[in-house]
Amino acid sequence: MKSDIPVICLQRLPIYLNYLKSLEGGETYISSGAIARALNMGEVLVRKDLAYTSATGRTRVGYNRDELVAALEDYLGCNNKKKAVIVGAGGLGQALLSYGGFINYGIEIAAAFDNDPSKIGKEIAGKPVFDVNNAQNGIRETGAELAVICVPAYHAQEVVDMLVNCGVNAILNFAPVLLKVPENVNVRNIDVAANLAILASSV
Amino acid sequence: MKSDIPVICLQRLPIYLNYLKSLEGGETYISSGAIARALNMGEVLVRKDLAYTSATGRTRVGYNRDELVAALEDYLGCNNKKKAVIVGAGGLGQALLSYGGFINYGIEIAAAFDNDPSKIGKEIAGKPVFDVNNAQNGIRETGAELAVICVPAYHAQEVVDMLVNCGVNAILNFAPVLLKVPENVNVRNIDVAANLAILASSV
Repeated sequence: MKSDIPVICLQRLPIYLNYLKSLEGGETYISSGAIARALNMGEVLVRKDLAYTSATGRTRVGYNRDELVAALEDYLGCNNKKKAVIVGAGGLGQALLSYGGFINYGIEIAAAFDNDPSKIGKEIAGKPVFDVNNAQNGIRETGAELAVICVPAYHAQEVVDMLVNCGVNAILNFAPVLLKVPENVNVRNIDVAANLAILASSV
Repeated sequence: MKSDIPVICLQRLPIYLNYLKSLEGGETYISSGAIARALNMGEVLVRKDLAYTSATGRTRVGYNRDELVAALEDYLGCNNKKKAVIVGAGGLGQALLSYGGFINYGIEIAAAFDNDPSKIGKEIAGKPVFDVNNAQNGIRETGAELAVICVPAYHAQEVVDMLVNCGVNAILNFAPVLLKVPENVNVRNIDVAANLAILASSV
């Protein structure tokens, strides 16, 4: 997957994929116009989104449905599964453990880490919860390459330092704090309050 | 607040604000260089971020600390409080109800709405949970102008239709689905899985 695709485009790709899969056994070809009408979207938008994948549509014929499904699955990494761990099994962490949507992108949540003795050793949504103070072993065992930080802001930097030490270099951070990481580590921040604040400025 | 400030800049502003407030009683003036050093950030970045506010620094003197605090508070909407409701009091909704960071942006979470009889009429993190099927009254009573959608994807469109009917026209959506709204309604989408997928493409 090219990492320069806008999030807004990327999050539409599983929608096309699910729609195309629902048509199994139907016509061999499908046009961008037909997809656009079915999903109530603009045809130009659909064509631009699909152009991120390797699929090519033919004039007046459209896309070969099976090829387009394969191209979307390939682009979304469904055939190249990656494992992620969640650090912090509080409300947000638990919500993410229960969320089924990661598999659309070929991502499997392998485990969670927490420091709460009442959670360690248990399972949440079928995923094991390990002791964050012994995370190094746990992360190595799971083979996770990705991590999601769901701990309070004042714990986030020590967690990210630990993750970097464990060789995790792609981190999604929900803690509202600026994390210091080495240059080769890729961090994306999701600050829910800041997003709401930008909306608030529009009302 | 200008709504065209990048999220990445906006989410640094509360960090400056908290730092400046911690200096209360100290020097009258503070330079962008001193702020940058204290927060381990680049000075150019600090100056660019602060330029979004109405504060103006003076050469070789810096910013008047009190003026800069006021400008940040003003920009962040702390003096113009807005109310928000959360629809869907599952794991994610509960995590947001417990999250204290909204107040940094002058946003107060007034209530939650859910369809689970075991939650309706109770409080979560001190916030009342109302029946989503009677949300129209609840939203009017709270005076909320903002809403956060934390319901499963297949319920999100009916929830957004209801919110629009109630006059809410700024919506933060966590459901991984494209919402159809009238043109005057402002929706921001946070798709956690898509963000993780973009990171996954870097490993």
